[in-house]
Amino acid sequence: MSSDSQVYGARIGRVQQEMEQRDVDFLFVTPSSDLIYLLGYGAHASERLTLLGIPRDGEPFIVAPQLESMRLNERSDLLDIHVWTETESPIELVGRIVEGGQGATIAVNDQTWSGFLLGLQGEIDADKWQSATGILRELRMVKDEHEIALLRHASESTDAAWQEFVETTTFAGRTEIEVGKDLNRLMTERGLQTSFLISASGPNSASPHYITGERVIQEGEPVLFDFGGRWQHYTSDVTRMVHVGEPSDEYHKVYDIVLQANRAVLAGVQPGMPCEDVDKLARDVITEAGYGEYFIHRVGHGLGLDTHEEPYMVGGNETPLQVGVTFSDEPGIYLDGKFGVRIEDLLVVTDDGAESLNHAPRDIVIVK
Amino acid sequence: MSSDSQVYGARIGRVQQEMEQRDVDFLFVTPSSDLIYLLGYGAHASERLTLLGIPRDGEPFIVAPQLESMRLNERSDLLDIHVWTETESPIELVGRIVEGGQGATIAVNDQTWSGFLLGLQGEIDADKWQSATGILRELRMVKDEHEIALLRHASESTDAAWQEFVETTTFAGRTEIEVGKDLNRLMTERGLQTSFLISASGPNSASPHYITGERVIQEGEPVLFDFGGRWQHYTSDVTRMVHVGEPSDEYHKVYDIVLQANRAVLAGVQPGMPCEDVDKLARDVITEAGYGEYFIHRVGHGLGLDTHEEPYMVGGNETPLQVGVTFSDEPGIYLDGKFGVRIEDLLVVTDDGAESLNHAPRDIVIVK
Repeated sequence: MSSDSQVYGARIGRVQQEMEQRDVDFLFVTPSSDLIYLLGYGAHASERLTLLGIPRDGEPFIVAPQLESMRLNERSDLLDIHVWTETESPIELVGRIVEGGQGATIAVNDQTWSGFLLGLQGEIDADKWQSATGILRELRMVKDEHEIALLRHASESTDAAWQEFVETTTFAGRTEIEVGKDLNRLMTERGLQTSFLISASGPNSASPHYITGERVIQEGEPVLFDFGGRWQHYTSDVTRMVHVGEPSDEYHKVYDIVLQANRAVLAGVQPGMPCEDVDKLARDVITEAGYGEYFIHRVGHGLGLDTHEEPYMVGGNETPLQVGVTFSDEPGIYLDGKFGVRIEDLLVVTDDGAESLNHAPRDIVIVK
Repeated sequence: MSSDSQVYGARIGRVQQEMEQRDVDFLFVTPSSDLIYLLGYGAHASERLTLLGIPRDGEPFIVAPQLESMRLNERSDLLDIHVWTETESPIELVGRIVEGGQGATIAVNDQTWSGFLLGLQGEIDADKWQSATGILRELRMVKDEHEIALLRHASESTDAAWQEFVETTTFAGRTEIEVGKDLNRLMTERGLQTSFLISASGPNSASPHYITGERVIQEGEPVLFDFGGRWQHYTSDVTRMVHVGEPSDEYHKVYDIVLQANRAVLAGVQPGMPCEDVDKLARDVITEAGYGEYFIHRVGHGLGLDTHEEPYMVGGNETPLQVGVTFSDEPGIYLDGKFGVRIEDLLVVTDDGAESLNHAPRDIVIVK
């Protein structure tokens, strides 16, 4: 058995332990970060069903289209491989493998397409269908040393790209898309595959999930960059800002509050703390400064194979933080029609607090 | 009402007609090509629910997270917009909007994440949940003039990138990834956003959905490129090959058979023909030449906003071709351990046959 197969075999074994505790008979996983985590298999979600099935006991199986089946050869020591040809029904094939599934409890990973779930619900006579998140969260949210090393490398390379970007790029008179291309190129040069990139200028920075557009950056405006890149499947996620020319007093004030909130999270996180209290660390700073109503999102999210994953740092989430959890620390203040400010770092929970994987400077950067 | 809103309003009206005919009470659509088609809204699928709900009669609604809601302002003339904040449940919000949904038939678009469908099934007391594909296929598979113009531009730009690629790139001694980056750059320079790119050398070309890797291209080998790029959301999809140095007699023979099969589709397609007969046009050529067992996939798929979409050119699909359907014509022969050959063009069904949107040469190209 290869060392890769040992890693994935151990993960599947832990899934089966969770299934035993939760009385789940089958776990179904289709192409997604969950499939990469459990099998190292990076198939794309498509209309052709690929499905990993893990029974509570015994050997897992995978159903895969014939034209992709040769890519599974290196996992054949872990799996019973069932190939379907173009004129066969993969849904019926799954039904036969689970022998009809009468009375079973079946968990399905969240990103499986509904078209497949509806088909499976019609084919398999299960007693209960449920989300697999409870099972998979327990494994995925705590990162091992190898995963943290990949996240660290992704974050350090992203910081380096940012540093070169602010030192070499001119902003005024160019579009958000144009300057975004510069940043993308600097990510690519460091071997990162850009997973997302928001370039939001002036009033657009007040829209937290703005779609980068053709707006021309003006003198006297901030530009917000929220971006990340993958390194061996693991992604970075950082937000930094530049200001073209001298900022206003209001910008200085808002920026300082957001930075204090960002630093309060890093200083205050402790293992065992409920996720909702992490949100509160930042929210209290912003609320006490009088901007609470303008901090319109949670302070952060888990991050690893997915840019957003469990656990979420949001009011109502009582999940306790464990050592090895990686999450974004990204408070923001958004003044509609004027500007927004967000500062974001990736943190990892340690034995006695948290460490930031991002080190790009957080001071106000004035550019041309 | 803006002209964009008129286009999307008309599409939603046609959906409501289909719903009436099929006795469907609500259609739910989450971020995907379906949402772009119906609303021009390119949100990313994420753990935060965005859901367009279309009732059989009356005004549609959309449920969206507060931090993205400002992006919906330009569609406010078409929609009742319901915003949820970070600590609210969007699933419960949908339940309230449909007033519990007792006894309803609800169609859900295929790419909606199962995590959301399972939540909705727990919240809403519907009588029946079904795939929305039957409804949406009728609209999406026939392209209007504007859509065909975008697909034509994407295909022509992709052909031009290919032409420059074969004229300027050296292959022998470089990796699949390296030469793939050259092709990607030529796509980007033409304003296309590469949606996928397979670069498969030597024996890897026999794996139809090969994942491009670090293999070094050798003298005497073919390299298969299957790639596409987006232009205003609409994608191209073409497959061409190069051969480093002189090909073997076997390669010549297989290549000629695949090319004949590819040309047989273009020559034989007629409006009204069942999709499975399109597959047969190519399969008969390859089978008669003695390679039937090595043509291990359908001959093609619909294409537009998605690289793969309805209708599929596959045995068993009796859907008749309509004028304006765009689909890939991509027969292949795959000799495990040796090489594979595939030649692919995008075709559009016309009043009296089909037109190819790709014009890059299909002769064997010998490169260094």
